[in-house]
Amino acid sequence: MTSSASKSWLLLLGFILFYVIYLLLGALVFSSIERPVEDKLRNDIQTMQREFLNQTCINATALEEFLVKALSASEYGVSVLKNSSLNSNWDMASSMFFANTLVTTVGYGHSTPLSDMGKAFSILYALIGVPFTMLVLTASVQRLMYPLVYAPQALFQRSGLDPRPASQLHFALLLAAVLLCLFVAPAFVFRAIEGSWSFLDAVYFCFMSLCTVGLGDFVPGEQPGQKYRSLYKVVVMVYLFVGLMMMYLLLRAFHKMADLHGLTSLLELPHCEEPEGDLRPILGDGPTDTGPPPPGPLHHRAATKQPLEPAAQPSYNTISKG
Amino acid sequence: MTSSASKSWLLLLGFILFYVIYLLLGALVFSSIERPVEDKLRNDIQTMQREFLNQTCINATALEEFLVKALSASEYGVSVLKNSSLNSNWDMASSMFFANTLVTTVGYGHSTPLSDMGKAFSILYALIGVPFTMLVLTASVQRLMYPLVYAPQALFQRSGLDPRPASQLHFALLLAAVLLCLFVAPAFVFRAIEGSWSFLDAVYFCFMSLCTVGLGDFVPGEQPGQKYRSLYKVVVMVYLFVGLMMMYLLLRAFHKMADLHGLTSLLELPHCEEPEGDLRPILGDGPTDTGPPPPGPLHHRAATKQPLEPAAQPSYNTISKG
Repeated sequence: MTSSASKSWLLLLGFILFYVIYLLLGALVFSSIERPVEDKLRNDIQTMQREFLNQTCINATALEEFLVKALSASEYGVSVLKNSSLNSNWDMASSMFFANTLVTTVGYGHSTPLSDMGKAFSILYALIGVPFTMLVLTASVQRLMYPLVYAPQALFQRSGLDPRPASQLHFALLLAAVLLCLFVAPAFVFRAIEGSWSFLDAVYFCFMSLCTVGLGDFVPGEQPGQKYRSLYKVVVMVYLFVGLMMMYLLLRAFHKMADLHGLTSLLELPHCEEPEGDLRPILGDGPTDTGPPPPGPLHHRAATKQPLEPAAQPSYNTISKG
Repeated sequence: MTSSASKSWLLLLGFILFYVIYLLLGALVFSSIERPVEDKLRNDIQTMQREFLNQTCINATALEEFLVKALSASEYGVSVLKNSSLNSNWDMASSMFFANTLVTTVGYGHSTPLSDMGKAFSILYALIGVPFTMLVLTASVQRLMYPLVYAPQALFQRSGLDPRPASQLHFALLLAAVLLCLFVAPAFVFRAIEGSWSFLDAVYFCFMSLCTVGLGDFVPGEQPGQKYRSLYKVVVMVYLFVGLMMMYLLLRAFHKMADLHGLTSLLELPHCEEPEGDLRPILGDGPTDTGPPPPGPLHHRAATKQPLEPAAQPSYNTISKG
């Protein structure tokens, strides 16, 4: 690995470290703003429930009043039920989980800030956090494009495939790997841990999360009496981060394949940007590579961006056989 | 406007038309799958409430049982309250709104599919819809880059500004316009229409929606007794689409500015892809443009992608003064 490549990975490590610190800071602030408000709401609703139960006869109006309060508390994630989770929505792990769903734009909304201060801080936090998370994800994918996209495609090409079939085969394999590792396997795990989820529920959760839709009808770690809840929440956060990264990588690989097949040009859409990373090893390595030596560290983009006529598009592929 | 440019806009129109048809189809399917299930749940919960009220004395266990049912119904958007909205969550307008929040990945989750069939269809619908919506948004932004980014930047440059300050000034103006038109003005409108929202609530809603977080604690058109609710939902959908488009445009403009300042190279991130559209008018129009005639329709990318050394980066700008 060249020194520029290790510098590049060090930069990424710095990004990820800063990302974790940002989440921890967010968790600290959300927890300190929202926890007292949540406690107050929980006490209020419990008092109201006791008063309601102390009445001698059932009164439709009293029930309605109590229900208004109970349902609105439930919207903020505070339940009146006895066997509901006694965990706060704003302890450190849950606050960090909330911060994470904000910056990744998943936004389940199973617990939302109650106070104006919490709402204002959410805006500020997402304003910085969302672009920064996009940056970290982009930087991660940028560094993973070589080992997970260019290298395997080059391998297929060296074993005799043309660029287009090579990219198709690679995409199919990548898709299968992503489906298996990010949807099917996690769904089995979630079904096992979350007692009430069916397998469909678990797949639906994985899909809605990794598309950043985040409907929030299924959220892990919210059932009463779950062990190691904080650790579980952290693991789900890591799953979300890796999952989003791989979804983005899949999108980039698809985008490259679409470029190669002339689809992006046909629909007049932007082309996939080539990474500027450490591509020389593979270019200089193959027995079929007989091109002139590259003029500089950025030779690759210049070389691949020049042939722009549609007919020349197969050579668009970074790892063309020359 | 050249014929290729009008073809390009026609293509976009086709995309948008197909997008609307896709939403309508989604609404039709969601409505027919979910409406009967919702009606059944609503009836069940009302029966249960009547039975609870018919008891002679209040029983904590009975209350708990009733609350379990009421809270779980509320999570699906079915309320037991008398003065709650009597509108279905799965009439055509609401179903279309749900379909829209799926494909744009906003995902408020204020109403979610109850049935397994609905969940399975949501996955399938988002699987096609999310990439397609990204395509429509990308295609729209691609066509708006010239009038909203390149043309104004060229104007600033012609009036004597260098590329970097020109891009900064342009970005500041664009940001101000977006803040005013997509956050401040809509927030005033939402506050006026949604009685119980404060101005902060409305800004918080706009922000969380246009970042696609979509927490769903505030959703327009869900209050009881709102007039023209269907029309209102459609207008909010248009707002979401235009808003997301402008957010994406803002991001692209920022990305271009970062390229120009060498920030993307510094952080080893991909550069902003140049649009291939109708850029010749402005390139051939300026009095300072004295370059050779372009070799083909794609001249622009080839010309701007060649100078890749960091020192040559100001000429990266599409509308360089030559």
